[in-house]
Amino acid sequence: MKKTLNIVKVGGQVVEDDSRLNTLLGGFCAIEGRKMLVTGGGRTATRIAAELGIESHMLNGRRITDEPMLRVVTMVYAGIVSKSVVAELQAKGINAIGLCGADLDIIRCVKRPAKPIDYGFVGDIKSVNVKELKMLIDAGAVPVFCPITHDGMGQLLNTNADTIASALASALAEEYDVTLTYCFEKKGVLSDPDDEDSVIREIRKADFERMREDGTVSDGMIPKLDNAFAAIDAGVNKVVITNAENLGKDSGTEII
Amino acid sequence: MKKTLNIVKVGGQVVEDDSRLNTLLGGFCAIEGRKMLVTGGGRTATRIAAELGIESHMLNGRRITDEPMLRVVTMVYAGIVSKSVVAELQAKGINAIGLCGADLDIIRCVKRPAKPIDYGFVGDIKSVNVKELKMLIDAGAVPVFCPITHDGMGQLLNTNADTIASALASALAEEYDVTLTYCFEKKGVLSDPDDEDSVIREIRKADFERMREDGTVSDGMIPKLDNAFAAIDAGVNKVVITNAENLGKDSGTEII
Repeated sequence: MKKTLNIVKVGGQVVEDDSRLNTLLGGFCAIEGRKMLVTGGGRTATRIAAELGIESHMLNGRRITDEPMLRVVTMVYAGIVSKSVVAELQAKGINAIGLCGADLDIIRCVKRPAKPIDYGFVGDIKSVNVKELKMLIDAGAVPVFCPITHDGMGQLLNTNADTIASALASALAEEYDVTLTYCFEKKGVLSDPDDEDSVIREIRKADFERMREDGTVSDGMIPKLDNAFAAIDAGVNKVVITNAENLGKDSGTEII
Repeated sequence: MKKTLNIVKVGGQVVEDDSRLNTLLGGFCAIEGRKMLVTGGGRTATRIAAELGIESHMLNGRRITDEPMLRVVTMVYAGIVSKSVVAELQAKGINAIGLCGADLDIIRCVKRPAKPIDYGFVGDIKSVNVKELKMLIDAGAVPVFCPITHDGMGQLLNTNADTIASALASALAEEYDVTLTYCFEKKGVLSDPDDEDSVIREIRKADFERMREDGTVSDGMIPKLDNAFAAIDAGVNKVVITNAENLGKDSGTEII
C-alpha cells in the first residue's frame, strides 16, 4: 500500500494575513504523515513592486513578468514569503524546507512562447524531479514550494502556484496516495457567489463542463478546477477546494 | 578516512558582478566531490533598501537590521541572490539547493542582546544541524547558504555570512575533511594594502596577533581572520583566503 501524502496549496490572501496564515499553518501541522505546502504571494509582490516603482500588469488573471518583475517575485515568493512560512512551521515543530523549482532541479519549465501573448518570464512545467522530492519527503522534510521555477539553462521563471501544486501532486501520485487541497478565501466552490454557504460538495467532470457553460464557475475558478481535474486524471486520489479555516476538516468542495 | 568537503564563501562584490560571479561559479564547479557555497549580498540589499526608501545603517561593518531591513535582506539574500546562483549552478550541472538557516532547522541562532549595541534582528549562531546537512550532502546535493537564519521560535534573523561559513565548516569537521575558502575582492591577505601582489602566503595564530597589533590587518579583515582561526580551532583541515579568479588554485593566504 502506498503511503499518504498531503499537498496543500495556500493562496495569497491567506499568506498575507497573519491571523489567517496562523490558522492555516495550525491546520497544516495537524495533518499527520508526509506533507507539502505550496504558497502564493501575488498581493505582496504587487505591493513591493509598487514600492519599487514597478507597475503590475495582469492579463487573464496572470502576471506579466518582465525582468524587473521577475526580480520582485523571486524576492517576494522565494525570499520573504517562503522563509517566513518555513520559520513559522519550524517553530511549530514541522521540519520545513523552503524550495523553488530550481532547487535540486525539482521543477523544470520552458519559457512560455511570446505568442499569442507575451507573458515575459513565465514558465510552463516540463518535468518534476520525483527522485529528489522523494528523498526529502522520506527523510521527514516538509517541502514548502514557492511559485518560482527555472529552465535548466540559468533562467528563473514565474509559474502559477495552483499549477505547481497540481503538477507536484500528479508527479508524486505514482509514489504516494496523494490528497491535494486548495485553500483559498472561500469555503469551496459556490453555487451562488453571493452566498458563502452555498458550497457545492462534489464536482464531477461532467458537472464542471455544465457549470462552465452556465456560468456557475467563472474567472479564477476555471483554471483552479482545470488544475484539479488534471491532478485527478494523473492519478491523484482526492482534490479538495476549501478555505484556510477548514483545512483537514470534512468540508469544502471535492473534485471527483 | 573522512571524505573531503569544500566550503566556499563568496562575498558581495563577487555575487553582484555577473562576470566575476560567473568566473567564481566556474571555479566552484571544477572542485570535485562534496561541496557547499555560502553567499553574501550586502550591496544589493543596500541598493534595494534605498529603492524602497529604507536607509542602511552599518556599525563596525555590521548591518543594523530593524524589521523593514530584515524583510529586505530576506528578500535579497534568500530570494534573488540565492535562487539566481542556484539556477546558474543547475545550468552548469551542479545539483544546487538554496537554503537559509531556518530550512530543516540547519542553523539556529539567538537574537543578539540589545546591549551594548542594538543591532536589531541579528542572530548569533547557537547550533548547526549536522544530521540534515549530511543527508543532503551525501545525497549529492550542493547546498547554497544565504546569511538568513532563525531562532526556532518563528523569528528570522540576519547573520554574518563569513561567520555562517566558519560555523558550517566547524560543525562538519567531525564528519568530513573540510577545506574552507573565503573568496573576496583581493588575492589574499596583503602585507601592503596598496600592493595587490603582496599576498601573505601563510598566517599562523602568532602572526595574526602581531599583524593585528602592528596594523597589517585591520577593519573587515580582522573578523574574517577570527572566523578562519575559529574554524581551524574546531578541526577544519584548511582555511584559504583568496579571490574569485583563483578559487581552487594554489594561491591566496592559507590560515594554519
